[in-house]
Amino acid sequence: MNTDANASEVRALLDSWSKAVVKRDVPAILAFYADDIVSFDAIGPLRFVGKAAYGKHWADCMEMCQGDMIFEVGDWHIETGGDIAFAHSLLHCGGTGPDGKTMTSWMRLTSCWRRTNGKWQIAHEHYSMPMDMTSGKIQTDLQP
Amino acid sequence: MNTDANASEVRALLDSWSKAVVKRDVPAILAFYADDIVSFDAIGPLRFVGKAAYGKHWADCMEMCQGDMIFEVGDWHIETGGDIAFAHSLLHCGGTGPDGKTMTSWMRLTSCWRRTNGKWQIAHEHYSMPMDMTSGKIQTDLQP
Repeated sequence: MNTDANASEVRALLDSWSKAVVKRDVPAILAFYADDIVSFDAIGPLRFVGKAAYGKHWADCMEMCQGDMIFEVGDWHIETGGDIAFAHSLLHCGGTGPDGKTMTSWMRLTSCWRRTNGKWQIAHEHYSMPMDMTSGKIQTDLQP
Repeated sequence: MNTDANASEVRALLDSWSKAVVKRDVPAILAFYADDIVSFDAIGPLRFVGKAAYGKHWADCMEMCQGDMIFEVGDWHIETGGDIAFAHSLLHCGGTGPDGKTMTSWMRLTSCWRRTNGKWQIAHEHYSMPMDMTSGKIQTDLQP
């Protein structure tokens, strides 16, 4: 087991995955997920179970948010053991609306990986923005 | 490497950890965290880095939410490899206010573990509730 090599491999895959998101290439994005992916996204429902349900959600999200995509995850902390890895980073995310205005927020992302038959895949994802206790609203203006 | 035994050990630790939360025993809760814990909590800021900062946050949360604590995580999915594990579950969380009313919500929780010198500790946590895109508010009434 070469943990450093595994972390480098997962880091390269995370980089390719995020580039697929920026390109809005849903089939390329979905190629990174295990069939039994369980995802907690920043918007509801509570969870997505399985690649079919999660793939539909990715397609819906791309439909909902048009224009240029900003999706920057440059701060990965990655730990690996055997065929398992977890990674987390802040995520600078947003896009340009039809009015030409660019809106971005900082989110949090956890990405958990599993290697099966030599292939690393995402088995679990968790995206969120924290809430403000007083208003019950998402805090979209936090800065790292 | 006995993955099943590792998963059982992490499951037992998660059970002890959640019991410590229900008891509001902050020192007992903090004993489960690695010194370099990075946590994304359901309320801001974006992240807590290190056990000292996160310990203060746990103490503040216990101060903020008085009364009986409901903290039920019965649905753990756990995967382990070598000295790394990740786990995720929905979390039924809430409490009883001074008016005697019990308020609960469903949240999502990801818990990432690392074993050092034979001891499993939580290296990363991520709590959240999803947002409603229209109102910008947290969806506190979702059911699994």
